[in-house]
Amino acid sequence: MENFDLIVIGGGPGGYLAAERAGHAGLKTMVVEKREFGGVCLNEGCVPSKTFLNSAKVLDYANHAANYGVKVEGKNSIDQAFVVERKNKVVKTLVSGVKGQLKANKVNMKMGVAKIEGKDAEGYIVSVDGKEKFSAKRLIIASGSTAACPPIPGLKEGLASGLVMTNREVLDLKEIPEKFVVIGGGVIGLEMASYFSSVGSQVEVIEMLTKIAGPTEAEISGILQKSLEKKGIKFNLGCKVVGIEADGVVYEKDGKQVKAKADKILLSIGRRAFTQDLGLETIGVNCDRGAIVTDDKMMTNVANVYAVGDVNAKVMLAHTAYREAEVAINNILGKPDRMNYNVIPSVIYTNPEIGSVGETEESAKAKGLDVKVASLSLMFSGRYVAENTEYDGICKLVINKKTNTLIGAHIIGSYAGEYIVAVSALIDLEVDIENIKKLVFPHPTVCEIIRETVFSIK
Amino acid sequence: MENFDLIVIGGGPGGYLAAERAGHAGLKTMVVEKREFGGVCLNEGCVPSKTFLNSAKVLDYANHAANYGVKVEGKNSIDQAFVVERKNKVVKTLVSGVKGQLKANKVNMKMGVAKIEGKDAEGYIVSVDGKEKFSAKRLIIASGSTAACPPIPGLKEGLASGLVMTNREVLDLKEIPEKFVVIGGGVIGLEMASYFSSVGSQVEVIEMLTKIAGPTEAEISGILQKSLEKKGIKFNLGCKVVGIEADGVVYEKDGKQVKAKADKILLSIGRRAFTQDLGLETIGVNCDRGAIVTDDKMMTNVANVYAVGDVNAKVMLAHTAYREAEVAINNILGKPDRMNYNVIPSVIYTNPEIGSVGETEESAKAKGLDVKVASLSLMFSGRYVAENTEYDGICKLVINKKTNTLIGAHIIGSYAGEYIVAVSALIDLEVDIENIKKLVFPHPTVCEIIRETVFSIK
Repeated sequence: MENFDLIVIGGGPGGYLAAERAGHAGLKTMVVEKREFGGVCLNEGCVPSKTFLNSAKVLDYANHAANYGVKVEGKNSIDQAFVVERKNKVVKTLVSGVKGQLKANKVNMKMGVAKIEGKDAEGYIVSVDGKEKFSAKRLIIASGSTAACPPIPGLKEGLASGLVMTNREVLDLKEIPEKFVVIGGGVIGLEMASYFSSVGSQVEVIEMLTKIAGPTEAEISGILQKSLEKKGIKFNLGCKVVGIEADGVVYEKDGKQVKAKADKILLSIGRRAFTQDLGLETIGVNCDRGAIVTDDKMMTNVANVYAVGDVNAKVMLAHTAYREAEVAINNILGKPDRMNYNVIPSVIYTNPEIGSVGETEESAKAKGLDVKVASLSLMFSGRYVAENTEYDGICKLVINKKTNTLIGAHIIGSYAGEYIVAVSALIDLEVDIENIKKLVFPHPTVCEIIRETVFSIK
Repeated sequence: MENFDLIVIGGGPGGYLAAERAGHAGLKTMVVEKREFGGVCLNEGCVPSKTFLNSAKVLDYANHAANYGVKVEGKNSIDQAFVVERKNKVVKTLVSGVKGQLKANKVNMKMGVAKIEGKDAEGYIVSVDGKEKFSAKRLIIASGSTAACPPIPGLKEGLASGLVMTNREVLDLKEIPEKFVVIGGGVIGLEMASYFSSVGSQVEVIEMLTKIAGPTEAEISGILQKSLEKKGIKFNLGCKVVGIEADGVVYEKDGKQVKAKADKILLSIGRRAFTQDLGLETIGVNCDRGAIVTDDKMMTNVANVYAVGDVNAKVMLAHTAYREAEVAINNILGKPDRMNYNVIPSVIYTNPEIGSVGETEESAKAKGLDVKVASLSLMFSGRYVAENTEYDGICKLVINKKTNTLIGAHIIGSYAGEYIVAVSALIDLEVDIENIKKLVFPHPTVCEIIRETVFSIK
C-alpha cells in the first residue's frame, strides 16, 4: 500500500490548489477526483457560466450598438450550439492548465471515487473506486457540494426528463427555450436568468425570499432587480414552489397557486456540502447539518485531517476554497496561518456587474459596530458616464467610526467585480480613511468611484 | 478690489479640485478658467476619447461577434457624427457635474483669462481679461499645458487648413478619414490610432523613438504594438518627420525620405506646460524649461504661491493633478502632506488595455535597487480565457528583494486599467509579499492574475 504525506479528496478549487501547494512544498501528494479536475467551479459553474455571459454581453452590445453610434444591420441572434462548444473548449483549456500545474508540482493525480477506510500505523487509509488502497499521514477533504434538491412534487420526474436542469445541465443546453423559469433568485439563478433573457427567452424567476441575490446589500440588489426587469425578466418574490408539472412550475403567492409556464426550468436554490459515502465515520470526523466542522486552521476534530471548500459550508465560493487550501497547507507545513472570513469579496456577473466585500450597514449594526455609510452615484466616474447610456450604478461604503477604516463596500456597475479587490486590500490592511484619500487612482476609471465615495464621507 | 483667501488659475482637474477642496474647507475661493471648466482632460482629452474608444469597442465586438457565437448579419459601421454628438453630451454632463461641485462648495467661478499683476498689502493681484482685478492671500497656478508644436515645415499651414489636428480637433472630426496618419506613438496617438483603425481608416503611426507608448514597459509595449499591427495599423518607428504636405507626412527613415499619405493627420508628440502671459515674472515665480518649479508640497519659490497639474510638468496626468491639488490645499490648511510621484498608475485605453504603476525592471535597476521580476500569461486567469479569443496578455511584477515588497506592476489585457489601483495600494502600503498571498481575490476575475503572479515569484 503506497503511503503519501498527503491525500487530497476532491480536485476542485480547494483540492487542486491544496495539492499544488503541497507538492510545491515537497510533500508526496495524491489528489483523487471522481469527475473532472477543476471541480464544479471550472467544469460546470463559475468559469463556464462566464463564457455564456460574455456571449450575452457581445449580443447586448450589438443590440444596443446604435446608442454608441455603431450601425449594426439586421437582426442579431445567438448560436447556442456554438456557445456551448466554445464553453467546452475554454473549460478544456483551463482544466488542462490545472492538470499541468499539478503535474509540474509532482502531484499524483488519481481518477476515481475516494473513500476513507479507517487508520493504521502508516496513517489514514483511502480506497479509490473500492479497489486500490493508499495511506497518508494527512488528509484534506475537499469533496465540494451538490445542488440542493428539495422534496418538491414532480421535481424528480422533471430532472429525469430533462425539463428541470441544475447548473450542470443548463451549461450544456444547445437550444434557447422560449419560456425559461428559474427556481431560486440567488447568484447562479440570476446569472442564468440574465443570460437567457439576453439571448431571447422569456424569463421568470421564482424566489422564496422577498429580495433577490441572497445576502447582497439590499439597495444594490434592488437596482439589479430593476435593471433585469427592464430587460424583460419577471420576478415572483416571496413565492413558494409547490409542484413541477410537464409545462411549468406551480408556486404559491399570497395563498393562491399560480403556474409559471416553462419549456425549461433551472433549479438553483443553493448547494449542500457533499459528505456522502466518504467514510468520514470510519475515523470519526465531526459534521454539523451535513457539513464538516473546521476551525480557523481548517482542521477537523481529527488530528491531521483538514477540510476545505464547499464541504465545510462556511462560504461556498471558489476563492474561499483557495484561501482555505493555503491555510491548511501552511498549517501542515508549520507556518502559522488562520482563515479570516471577514474580507471575502463576491461578484455577480450580471450586466450590470456587482462587486461586494465585507459588512453591509445591516450586518455591521447586527454585530454592534458603530458605523456610517457613504453612498454615491457612479455618475461621479467619468469613464462610467463615457461608456454607458443608463446610469443606475452606485457605490456604498461602510465605515467603522471607531477605527476610521472601511469595513464594507457594495458596488453595482461596470468592472465592479474587477476592482472590488482594491477595497478588500484596504479593509484587510485596516487603512485609515485619511490615508485612503492619499492613494492615487488612475483617471478616468470607474474604480475612481471608491475615491470619490471616500471623499464624500461626512 | 475683492479679496479672496485663494485664487486658482485654471479650471482643469488640478484647478477645479483645488478650488473644490478649498471651498469645502471654508476658504473664500475663486477659480478662473479661460475656456471650459474641466480643462483639457474633460473637454478634449482623457474623458471624451473614452467615448470614442467605447464606440470602437462596441464595433469591434460586433465585427468579431461570431467568435463568441453571436450572429450579426450585414456590415457594421460607425456613425461618426453621432459619436461626436454623444461625446459632446457626455462632456456636457460631466462639465456640469464639475460646476455643480464647485457651486456646492461655494467656489466663485469666473470665466476669462487670468493674469498675475504683482502684489500689494492684501495679497497677489490677478486681473481677468485685463479688466476686473482681484486679490488673494494665496495663489494656485493650474494653467495646464498645450500640445507641443515643433518647427516642422508645413505644420503651421496644415494646422490652419485642418489637415493637421491636435487632440482638440480630432475629437470633433465628424467623418472617418480614409488615410489617417498619427505623428507620435505616445498614449494619445495610440488611442486615436486604435480608434480610427477600428472604425475603418488605414492608419500609420510615425514615431521618433524605436518603441511605442513612451515610458511603458518594453515587453508590454511590444505586445500592444503587435496587437495593433494585427488590426492593420502600420508603425514607422525610429522615424523623424521632416515635412507636412497637402497629401501626407514626409519622414526620414535610415537617411531616406518617405511619404505617408494622409487625408487627416494627428499631431500628438507631447505637451508643454502653459506659462505664457500668466504674469509669473511680476511676482518672480521660478520656471525651468517653461514649467513652474515646485517642491513636494507643491509650493513654488514664492511664498503662498503653489502650482499643480501639467504646468509643473512633473507627471502630466489628470490624477497626478488631483493629488497635487490636494497636497497644495492640505499644506495651505496646515495639514502635513507631501507629494509622492512613485506610485502613480497609468492606463492606456487601447484594446487590449494597459495598466501600469511604479518601477519597471529597467527603471528600478537604474536606481540601484536589487529587484526580481515575475511574469505570467493572463491565461492563468479563468475569466480572461472565458472572455477572449486571443491570449497575448501578460502581467509583470517588479519586487524589491531587500524589502520583499512590490514596487512595480505592468499588465496588458482586459480591465487592467480598472484593477491596477489594487497594486498601487499594495505598493503604497509596502505590503510584504507573504501578506499579499493572504489577500482573497474574487474568482473568476482577470485581476486574479496579480495573485497568480505573486505566487509564481521565485
